[in-house]
Parts: sequence; C-alpha cells; structure tokens
Amino acid sequence: MDLKKFFTPASVAIIGASKDISTINGKPLHYLKKHGYAGTIYPVNPKYEEVGGCLCYPSLEDIPGPVDLALIAVNYRLVPAMLEQCVKKGVGFATIFSSGFAEAGEEGRRMQGQLSEFASKTGLRICGPNCQGGVDLYNNTAAAFSASLDTTPFKPGPIGFVTQSGALGFSIFNLAQENGIGFSYVISTGNEVDLDCMDYIDFMIDDPNTKTIFLYLEGVRNGRKFVKMAHRALEKGKPLVVLKVGTSEIGSRAAASHTAALTGSDAVFNAFFQQKGIIRVDSIEGFIDLGKIISSASVMPKGNRLGVVSISGGGGVLCADTAEECGIRMAGLQIETVERIKKEIPPFGSPLNPVDITAQAINTAEGFSNVIQAMLADPGVDALVVVITMIVGEPGLRMARDLAGISAGSKKPIIVAWTAGEQLMGEQFEILRKSGVPYYQSPVRAVRALAKLMNYHDALPEKSAGGRLAESSIKNGEIPSLAMKILKKTETVLTEYQSKKLLGSFGIAAGLEEPAHTEKEALLAAEKIGFPVAMKIDSPDILHKTEAGGICLDVQDGNQLVKEYGNILQNASQYNPDARIKGVLIQEMIPPGVEVIIGVNRDVQFGAVIMFGIGGIFVELLKDVSLRIAPVNEKEAMAMIRETHGYKMLAGARGGAMGDISALAKTIERVSSMAMALGPRLKELDINPLIVLPEGKGVKVADALVVLQEAD
Amino acid sequence: MDLKKFFTPASVAIIGASKDISTINGKPLHYLKKHGYAGTIYPVNPKYEEVGGCLCYPSLEDIPGPVDLALIAVNYRLVPAMLEQCVKKGVGFATIFSSGFAEAGEEGRRMQGQLSEFASKTGLRICGPNCQGGVDLYNNTAAAFSASLDTTPFKPGPIGFVTQSGALGFSIFNLAQENGIGFSYVISTGNEVDLDCMDYIDFMIDDPNTKTIFLYLEGVRNGRKFVKMAHRALEKGKPLVVLKVGTSEIGSRAAASHTAALTGSDAVFNAFFQQKGIIRVDSIEGFIDLGKIISSASVMPKGNRLGVVSISGGGGVLCADTAEECGIRMAGLQIETVERIKKEIPPFGSPLNPVDITAQAINTAEGFSNVIQAMLADPGVDALVVVITMIVGEPGLRMARDLAGISAGSKKPIIVAWTAGEQLMGEQFEILRKSGVPYYQSPVRAVRALAKLMNYHDALPEKSAGGRLAESSIKNGEIPSLAMKILKKTETVLTEYQSKKLLGSFGIAAGLEEPAHTEKEALLAAEKIGFPVAMKIDSPDILHKTEAGGICLDVQDGNQLVKEYGNILQNASQYNPDARIKGVLIQEMIPPGVEVIIGVNRDVQFGAVIMFGIGGIFVELLKDVSLRIAPVNEKEAMAMIRETHGYKMLAGARGGAMGDISALAKTIERVSSMAMALGPRLKELDINPLIVLPEGKGVKVADALVVLQEAD
Repeated sequence: MDLKKFFTPASVAIIGASKDISTINGKPLHYLKKHGYAGTIYPVNPKYEEVGGCLCYPSLEDIPGPVDLALIAVNYRLVPAMLEQCVKKGVGFATIFSSGFAEAGEEGRRMQGQLSEFASKTGLRICGPNCQGGVDLYNNTAAAFSASLDTTPFKPGPIGFVTQSGALGFSIFNLAQENGIGFSYVISTGNEVDLDCMDYIDFMIDDPNTKTIFLYLEGVRNGRKFVKMAHRALEKGKPLVVLKVGTSEIGSRAAASHTAALTGSDAVFNAFFQQKGIIRVDSIEGFIDLGKIISSASVMPKGNRLGVVSISGGGGVLCADTAEECGIRMAGLQIETVERIKKEIPPFGSPLNPVDITAQAINTAEGFSNVIQAMLADPGVDALVVVITMIVGEPGLRMARDLAGISAGSKKPIIVAWTAGEQLMGEQFEILRKSGVPYYQSPVRAVRALAKLMNYHDALPEKSAGGRLAESSIKNGEIPSLAMKILKKTETVLTEYQSKKLLGSFGIAAGLEEPAHTEKEALLAAEKIGFPVAMKIDSPDILHKTEAGGICLDVQDGNQLVKEYGNILQNASQYNPDARIKGVLIQEMIPPGVEVIIGVNRDVQFGAVIMFGIGGIFVELLKDVSLRIAPVNEKEAMAMIRETHGYKMLAGARGGAMGDISALAKTIERVSSMAMALGPRLKELDINPLIVLPEGKGVKVADALVVLQEAD
Repeated sequence: MDLKKFFTPASVAIIGASKDISTINGKPLHYLKKHGYAGTIYPVNPKYEEVGGCLCYPSLEDIPGPVDLALIAVNYRLVPAMLEQCVKKGVGFATIFSSGFAEAGEEGRRMQGQLSEFASKTGLRICGPNCQGGVDLYNNTAAAFSASLDTTPFKPGPIGFVTQSGALGFSIFNLAQENGIGFSYVISTGNEVDLDCMDYIDFMIDDPNTKTIFLYLEGVRNGRKFVKMAHRALEKGKPLVVLKVGTSEIGSRAAASHTAALTGSDAVFNAFFQQKGIIRVDSIEGFIDLGKIISSASVMPKGNRLGVVSISGGGGVLCADTAEECGIRMAGLQIETVERIKKEIPPFGSPLNPVDITAQAINTAEGFSNVIQAMLADPGVDALVVVITMIVGEPGLRMARDLAGISAGSKKPIIVAWTAGEQLMGEQFEILRKSGVPYYQSPVRAVRALAKLMNYHDALPEKSAGGRLAESSIKNGEIPSLAMKILKKTETVLTEYQSKKLLGSFGIAAGLEEPAHTEKEALLAAEKIGFPVAMKIDSPDILHKTEAGGICLDVQDGNQLVKEYGNILQNASQYNPDARIKGVLIQEMIPPGVEVIIGVNRDVQFGAVIMFGIGGIFVELLKDVSLRIAPVNEKEAMAMIRETHGYKMLAGARGGAMGDISALAKTIERVSSMAMALGPRLKELDINPLIVLPEGKGVKVADALVVLQEAD
C-alpha cells in the first residue's frame, strides 16, 4: 500500500489546532516545526488568525491549496463532521488523535463502526482514532503529539516501527533514539478503523529506507493478512521483530480490555512466528538490544556460528553459556586460526573458542587486533563478540580504535561487550559509537541480541522449511467429488466412517474398512478384508465407542464375529437407547506402530491451524504438540514432527522400529491441503490415532472425527 | 570466620610497592590513599625511600609497627620467600596479587601446592594468588588494584560481593556503583589456595553491614561447605545471589581451563540452588537489577502477590506476562480496593490488577497517589510495580515526588518502571534516585528482579521444604548390623538380592524374596511366598537379566517352576559361560502400580545426590527427573516428586489409581538417610523400578543395584 503521502505529506492540516503546546492539539504543529518539516502547515481553528507562526483557517475548505494529510484533534463527537469535510476537500489521509471510541464503551464503539464504514465508502484512508500519529525521520515529518518528540534532532536509520500502543511505542522510540538507534518511520496505529498495522508494514516492506520492521503488537484483526505480510517480509529479507504482549492469561485479558483488539492464543502466535522467521522479543530492551546491531552494523551474520574473544575467561564462558541457551553454535576454529592466536597470547590464555586472550592484552596492542583478525578470517566464524572488562586509559582507547578500524572493513559483524561504566569508559565508548560498532555493557545481552539475527538467517527462504508458501498437493479449491457429496449432507459431526471417507478422498488412507448393516454383510466384509478384523459400532450418536462397549478387536473368525456383532449392538443400545445405529464397521486390524495425532483447529485470526503430537502420555499429559498455520509443506511437516519431545518414539527409541516418518510428513501436508481446500467448512479434525508403521510401510488412520461448519 | 582484620586492617604492608600508579604494584597504595584509608600504609621495596608520600621500607622486618595485612605484588617465584617473612613478622593476612600459579601450567601448579601447605602449616591466612584484592567500602579500605577503584567516592551499602573472577567481578562492581548500588565488601578470591569463597561468605553472613551476598562463581572446591554456608545464610535471612557460569558444556570446559576450579554438573547446582533458596541470576544485569532493589528499598516483599499500576495498558500487560513467566502471582484485589480505584480513573481504564489508570493520570495528581495508596493498603498485595511512560515536565515531576513520598513510609516495596530516556526524564529520575525508589526503564526488568525476591521469601526456613537441614530417620553413622555385614564383603557391585537386603536394612522394603540354589529350595521358597511368583537368575556377573533370558514372571505352580528353573540356568550359562551362578531368586509377584526410579549418585563437589523420576518414557526419553543434594527430608521428597512432569501418573492421570505418594516420599527420605549413613562407601544406587502401589498400599522395590566404593 502506498503510504508515501501519509508519512511524507506535502501539506498538513491540523484540525482543532491550539496555541497551547502542552496540549494534544497544540503539540503536532510545534513538533512539525521543531523538527524542520519542509511542507506547508495549515492550522484549522475558527478561534485563531495564526498559530505558531502559521496562518490559521476557520475551516478545512478555506485552505487555499491541496491537503495531503489532515490531523484531527477535536472532541470525538465532532470527528465524523470533520471527516466529511476531508472528503469534500479531497484530503488523502486523516489521522485521528481523538479518543472516546471503542476503548471508551458502547457509544464509542458505535461511532467507531461509523468511521470504519465511512472510510470504506469514501476511500479516505484513516489512521487511528485514539492514536498518537506518525513520524518520518528521514524527512523530518513529525505528525504526532508524543512528548518523546521533544528530543532533537532525529536520528534516522533503517528501522520502521509500527506500534499498537502510542504511549509505550513512543517511549520505546525515545529510549532507542537515546541509545543511538535510528528509525525510518514510527507509527502509532490506534484503534485501526481503516489502516491497520499490516498496511503500514506492507508499505515499509517496499520502502528502501527501511531494512527491518519493529512491531509492538497487542492483537491482530486479520491473521491471514499478517501471514501474507510476514511472508513478503521474509522474501524481501527484511526481519520482522515483534513484541507481542498478552502471553499470560491475565495479561491477555487485560490487553483485550485496553485495546479493542482480539488477543489470539499465544501458542498459535508462537508457532506462526517460528514458521515465518519472525523474531520475537519479550521486552523493551529486546528491541533496544537488537536495534543496536541493526541500526549500526552494516553487515548481518550469514550463519549461526559464533566466535568469542575475551579479555576475561569468565566473560567468554558467559558468552558460550548464552550461545547454548539461544540455540546458536560456538564456532569450531581451524587449526591455522588456533596457531595464529597461540602466537599472540600467553600460555595461560586459551586459543580455542571462546578465546581467552587474558588481561595481558593490555600490553600488546597488535596482539589484540591480530587475534580479532584471525577469528574474522576463519571461515567457520559467522560473527564475533569481543568481551572487554576493566581496560581503562590508553590501552582501552587503543582497543576501541582497533575495533573501530577492523569493524569498518569487516564482512562479518563485530559486537562488543564492554563491562564497565560510562564514567570510566566514556571516551572508549564514544569511539565505538562514532564508528558504528554496536556495544553492550553485558556479554549476555550482546549474545542474546546477536543470536536472534543469527537464527533469523536460518529462516530465510532458501534455508527454511516455512520460507516459501506451501504449495498444496491438491490444487486450491479443487474439492474431490466424493468430498463434495459428504459436505452436502446436513450433519455437522461426521461418523468415523464418513470422516475416514472424507480423508480418503484427499489421499489420507485408513485401513480397509466396510460398513455392515447385518450379520451377513459383516461376514462378507470380514472375508473380503481378511481375518483377523476389528469391529466398531457405527452410529453418529455414539462418540465414545470404547466406553459404550462398541468395539471389539482382533476378531479371529466367523463364529466370533457373529457373536460379537450381537454383543456390540446390544451394548450400544443399552448405552444410549436413542442412538441411531447404522450397523457395525468391519476394519482391517492395523499392525502395531506408533500412535500419533494430527488435528486441525480454526483459529479466530489465523484460520486453519495444524497440530501434531505423539499419542498417549505425550499429548495427554505433557501437551507435547507442535503447531503451524496452514498451509504446511512436507519440509515444514518434518520440522513439526522433529520438534516434539515425543519424536524419539518415531526414531527407534526404547527398542522400537524406526517409523515411516516420510509418509507421516506427507500425511500432515495432505491434512493441511485438505484444510485449505475446505476452508471454513472444516471446523475441527482429529485423526486420533494415526498409526505410523515401520519405515517403508506407510501410515494408517485408525480413527478420525470431522466436525463441519454448517454451510451458509 | 573472622576476617575483620583482613578487610579492615589497622596497617597494610605493600610488598613490591611501585611509584608507577599504572602498574599492579603501584595501584594499591594509590587507591588506599585515594579513598581515604585511615590506617597505616607501609610500602616495602629496597629501591625506594618513599612511595606516594609514605616512608618505604627495604623489607618487611624493617617495619616498626605490627602489620595486619600484607599485599604481595612481586614475581611469583619470590612469593614463598615473602610469605616466610610475613610469618616471621607476625602478619595476620596476606593477599597475593601475583599470577603464574596453577593457571599458568605445571610449575605454577606445583608452587601453588606449596603455598597451600604453607598456609595450613603456619596459620598465615592467604587470599589469592592471582586475585585483585579486597575492598571494605564502609571503612574506605581499597586493598586492591582494579581500575574500577578510580571512581570516587565509594557508595557503601548492604551488598557483600565475592567474585572468583577479578576482572569480571570488579567490572560488575563498577557498573553497579554507577547505578547507585551500594556494597559493604568486594573480594576477588583468585586461586583460593587458603581462603575460599565460602570463608568470605561465612564472614559476611555474620557481618551487620551486609544484608545480601552476591557471588560470581566459576567452580566450587568443597560442595558440603557451600551447603552449610547456604544454609546459614538462609537461616539468617540473608539472600545469596549467584551468577554461576559454565552452564553449557563448552562454557564449562572453558571455565575449568581458566581457573583451576572444578565446574560441577549444572543440573546438580540448579537443584542445590533451588533447595537452599539461592537466587540465581544469569547475567551481569541480573546482579544490577536485583541490586537496585536490595540497595535502596528499605523493605522486602513478604509474599509473591504482585500489584501493578500502569499509565499505559500495554505496560501493565507486559508486567502480568512477566509475572507468569517468573512464577509469581498477580494479586487479586479486594472489592473495596477496586471501588476506591474506580473513583480515580476514567471509565476506559481498568480498576482490576494490572490497574490501568490511563494517561489521564497526567491531569489528576491526587488520583495517581490515591490509586497507589489503595493498592498498598490491599492485604492481597505484597509489592507494587508502577509503570509510567512518556509523562514529561511538571506532571512527571509530581508523580516522581508522589512516589518518593509514599515509598518512604511504605511497608511494602514500590518499584518504578519508567520507560523513557534520561534526556527527557533526568529530573524525574533524580527525585527517585535521591529518595531511594528503585526504578528501571523496562517493566520486564523491574518485574523479573522483584520476582526473584518475592520467590526468595518462599525459601525462608519457616516456609520452605529445604529450609531446615533434614533430620535423618537413621541416626547418622548408625549403620544397621546387616548392612555392616554386606559392606564387609569384597564385592563392589552387589547382586539384586544383596542390594535389596542392604536397602531392607535401612527400612526400604522389596517384595518377599528367597534365594534358591536348587530346584527343591526354589519350590519351598515359592510355597512360602505363595504362587504366582517371579523367578530371576541370581548372579553377580549377569546385570542384564532380561537380555540373558534370566527372568520368568507370573509362574503359576510347581510344575511350571521346575521347568523354568532349568530354562533359566541354561539360558544364563549360554549367555555367559563364565558367570558365577548363585541360583535363582524366587520373588513375590508385585501387583501393578506406577514404576518409578530412585537413584543416588556421588557428585564430586556435593557428595550424595538423590534422583527421582517416573519410569519409562519420562526418565528414558524425556530425562524428566528431579535432583536434590542429600540429606532430603520427607517434605523435600514430596517437592521432588511434584516437580517432575510425570508426577501426574501418580496423581490418577489416564484413568490410573492415585499412587501411595506419602509412602514414596518416606522411601526417598530413607534412601537419603542411607546415603548419608554410608557416606562415600555408597558409590551408586539405582532402585529401578520401585513400584508405587495405590494409596495406602505402600511401595515395593522390584529391582535394585548397589555399587560400593572399595573401603580404604
């Protein structure tokens, strides 16, 4: 979406402009001027002739020239009338600062609905209401009222920042700017009646000034749009960094009450973030720490192998501990690298990664820089963290200068963890700041931030499972004719038999199975399938078949079958006298294998979510499942399988055979394709269990339950 | 241990003193004077008449007065001679700055051994070598050479800091002081030839100025001493806060190479920390963040129920999310509290915890302070976090003053998270600093730090399971006579039968069981026990009995027994023709129950470690076990059982019966008592499985393996 004129309008009208720069309607003009906005400002207020040195107009229509952006800071009741005027005037964008809408109760909610309708009817694009506005730092355009804009000058940079909380978002912006982190845009999205976070992200993905997008997120209105944007960002190689609040139950309730947004299940969000390489941070400092690298490092890590050079053994150890915690690897060094390092350090140092050059580095400046260059030259090192402790004065200055010099020409990122205070190390830090070397006062924070970018590299399209949108094994929309027939029936809860037929039509096979309505049919079916067989009651009204005495396994011959046929029917009618009994299903006995569960659920925001887990204890007691937003390709399905703790059960643990994991992954992909093809008609699916047979023998659905959404 | 004269000597001799204050031997005198040391300083160096304005002596014996502390900064080869002089002069303590000892290789290791012997022989107490010295901030005694001492003046305070890394430790000290965090002592322990971390901690536990002890830890020499100190600290209510590095495999290897300390298994450390209420931090900022509260708050939280008041909804949500992550609870507010708050906030705020007072708090100063007071008055709130965003100027100043005022008289801690930069909020922050209100620029850091103190409260002796040293159910040292007999045998790997007998002598019962050396004996035994029985080969050389075909379960009568007797003997001798076969064990068939595992291992540092886990998948695949350092009392045993994921299997999960958890806890306690009584003689114990029968039916050892350490 083209928001160029929204962020960088040639002219801005401020409706309700005030001379009091301590108020919401006084601040925007003040900040526009303070930061040197180059376009035309039109204050609109019948009370004044002039505001802040700008000619003031009684109403929008009195403005002589065209208006790209209108900032509306009037009582919420007056907002609709102002919007009408905007349309009449041909204004492109309106930002509504006013609050009193959905966040304030019933009346506000109704009025907000009207704004939304108005926008889609007229084509006027609205930001807000209840927002703090937007800023374009490269063009000094501060169309916002946050007090954080009191700080001048702006530090422009590669980060676009979209925030659903104006207060928190602009305070993060303020802290980040104070830490030297540069932004392209900041936008507070407010109640999102028209433009939502995804629209701003869409714009930033194509914006050449923006290399990374930060998102403070409380809730998503349209999950599929988010999926699309995440995908686009990944393909463009622009990391999306998200602070999503509302992970706890109580927090999520509070988030819902404070914005009007829906807060989705955090587990689904996590799955989605992982799937699309979205970097998740859990705190403000998460943004700040990442921002330092993104904003200043000209190169990004190309892999996840970390090199560490430390003045203090302990500092190196902390880095190694943190690397493990973050799932990145400590680089193994080549012999030549180790030999080069050995020459530069005393015998009680360590030439292995983490390299401990010891405090003797004070005495040998060349040694320090030689070791760093040796590490950077090692093809096994993707990025370098240098830990320095209390090296004050000239030796410290020399180190800072060396780091600045080497960093300038390096193709691999160099991050510094210098554990000392500003008071003693001010000059050294200033050298690093000036030359754009990211530094921290903590090895742990340095490694944690760097690790997020190193792991991001694995999410890039050419490397990751989820990097490309999965191509369905069933062409989208092509629902098999058998499935169409089942979907046309009126029942929403399908029987086991129907459920398996539906799955079968999408290429997901159960064992052989025949419905029998009489003893004779049962006998014929069993002979066709071959003894031994399993027998199960076939009734849409009996879901818990075992409990109802409706199951008999391992039936050996005709005699036993006839006897059990009677038993099953009798048990079923005793269990539920009103149940509609269709007969008995005769099934092939599936040989032993590992029982797994594949499920589909519909998430309010993201649509179909695919679930996988190993049956029994793993799913029931440990909730050990993996989730993905559909569609899921085979490679992603493989990742889903592998990330469960129970995976080992499929990999030959406890003396079992290796399961047919490749058939299992194919089946997960097919379930995903089926979910995409059926769309909202598929409300729930449980394949429980699916039996995974030994390698090469495939998988078989042993039981399944499909719940449909009634057709509109 | 009394280290008063070590930290606060009346006189200090500096052996090898230099006029060059940029060197290790020049700095100590410089820093002592710079910080206003009140005692007498004697530089010792034949080269000078005077150093830094102090009369310089050619040797220690030339010093006229007594010397409490000698600082030794000479080449390591000269150190032994200097120590001899110290003893001759009657010096109490010597701090050795010199390096070149165990950290430097074989020669150094040998010399270090000599120092150690020298100390124990002469009674001279030695700090170091290879250390940076100690500081007493309350008495301006800087007997150290770290450049961090360039900063003046000291900020004394309630934290005693013991560090095994001089470089990292003093840089943490520097950062903390710059953050306004006050210390009583800082001590760099070096190679610990004599005084070790635990000695310094011992002193600080009894020191009235020290309320909390920080420990930077790379390795422990004597785990049992650590247990004792941790226990003393807990009983005195002085939190022990530990940054233990070497959690990762590679990190732990690096730690071992850089100090000479042994790095223990991190899982055992974690168990121990949890058991004794030790607060673990994982980074430098972990110390800083906790230090802010400990150093400035005059009151500590008395429980784990958090109240949150926020200007921004998002800030409150972040706090709630973090509270859940940290295992503390969001306080439920009383109706009166909610009513009081409702009066002060706009309708779109939230009067429930986390309370969202909205940005309108700018306009009503009384409202802000009334809400905070209402929260503090609520008996359900143990501590309060107040989140403020971009409230600049006078409204912000008013809030800061309100917080300062309320905090001064409060019996509950108030922590501020003010998410804005120093540039805009400098004055506001200054008010908080001056009045000792701990503040952070991040809600997450505020809650994480506070949560650690809230959880610590649960570890206090009157609340926790591990707070009191467990009293053994067997009086220490009283080894039952049957056990004595078994211990006297020469074998170290006991058979199942012997292992069970040993356990039985400590009150840990197996099912009925008789060894049989002939068919006839087997028949008699089975009749005595009662059919059905289990039969197992009895041989010290066959550990994997199932694999050897040496087990037969559910033997119904005498005929079957005779047949199987032959089979088992034949299988066993086929499996291992050289095995010594004692016969066959005849055992009671234990009724079905939940299989669990209890184990004992000897940790190099901590001695006996007790392990518990649920059998099968939980232990084998998921490594789902809980650990404790022995001794373990029944209450702790109960906590061990409950903290495993598999616990649900004992609590009636998956349709099973409730297991006899109380009998299980008693058994764990007995295993612990047995381990304490046997001491190092018990090398390994595996009860695998122990069958936990339904509630009231007890537990039974089904199989056990004891490995003994040969007696000296």
